Amino acid sequence: MEVFEAILKRRSVRKFTDKKVTDEQIDKLLNAAMAAPSACNKRPWHFYVVKNEEVLSQLKKASRFSNKNSSLIIVACGDTKRALPMQLNDYWIQDVSAAVENILLTATGLGLGTCWCGLHPMVRTVKKVRAILGAPEHHIPMALIHVGYPDEFPEARTQFEEKRVKIID
Amino acid sequence: MEVFEAILKRRSVRKFTDKKVTDEQIDKLLNAAMAAPSACNKRPWHFYVVKNEEVLSQLKKASRFSNKNSSLIIVACGDTKRALPMQLNDYWIQDVSAAVENILLTATGLGLGTCWCGLHPMVRTVKKVRAILGAPEHHIPMALIHVGYPDEFPEARTQFEEKRVKIID
Repeated sequence: MEVFEAILKRRSVRKFTDKKVTDEQIDKLLNAAMAAPSACNKRPWHFYVVKNEEVLSQLKKASRFSNKNSSLIIVACGDTKRALPMQLNDYWIQDVSAAVENILLTATGLGLGTCWCGLHPMVRTVKKVRAILGAPEHHIPMALIHVGYPDEFPEARTQFEEKRVKIID
Repeated sequence: MEVFEAILKRRSVRKFTDKKVTDEQIDKLLNAAMAAPSACNKRPWHFYVVKNEEVLSQLKKASRFSNKNSSLIIVACGDTKRALPMQLNDYWIQDVSAAVENILLTATGLGLGTCWCGLHPMVRTVKKVRAILGAPEHHIPMALIHVGYPDEFPEARTQFEEKRVKIID
């Protein structure tokens, strides 16, 4: 699928069929994620790929937005041990967000649906998800991404608004 | 260009030719940006499209990373008036980052090069750029994006690292 088309087609999908995402597809999603730009190329990320029924079920109860019927969840985390120091530390959020967007777009190109559920900066939810994943303190769960074959098909769209642009020429 | 190919081909470009980016291309970049997902679909963003020579020159001096010879800069800002309240306020960073990644990938598909230079959370740089743009206080410059026809061609790549993945099955 052409890149601009994928960008418009990427919509949040909240209902999935039972068909499983394959390991080959998961590999492609992770390759896309890690091709994202990052500040000083630090690549301050870690990805938990969850297929286990019990862990999926716990994750779906972790926040009131995360209860969807997907059979695959990828939790994208920041890795503060790899992040930049001091005032630049928070750049990991931008880096991981670009990686997440790459996952969503690649999934769209594969005919998969996704839903990005925000975790960080909700402190309690971050702690809960970290505990469920058995993740160390320096991994900060930022996005819980449902992935699966869509059972609903929102229309492609831009949400272009002219008033959000200022041209300086 | 196919979406996964664009993701691997998107590399930071730091040298540009004199050929100008057209208004039609700029429109496509902005349409891509605003098709990004955002928390509760708040779309908390604002884009400054800078073509003016004098303003470009000032922006290039605003940080030690921003001095490239592009003839177009898009500054992607968060709009805190549109952001979520309280603890959720910082989600705008993730939303604007997804929008920036959409710009970079669409540019790649158009044969353009880009370089994402980080601004927020560098407080002094943010203030400087806001003043140059004449932007209001509630616009937080997050990313300064150079856009142009590339005069260098870094190779496509993933930076996949198996150790940054944990499978829970």
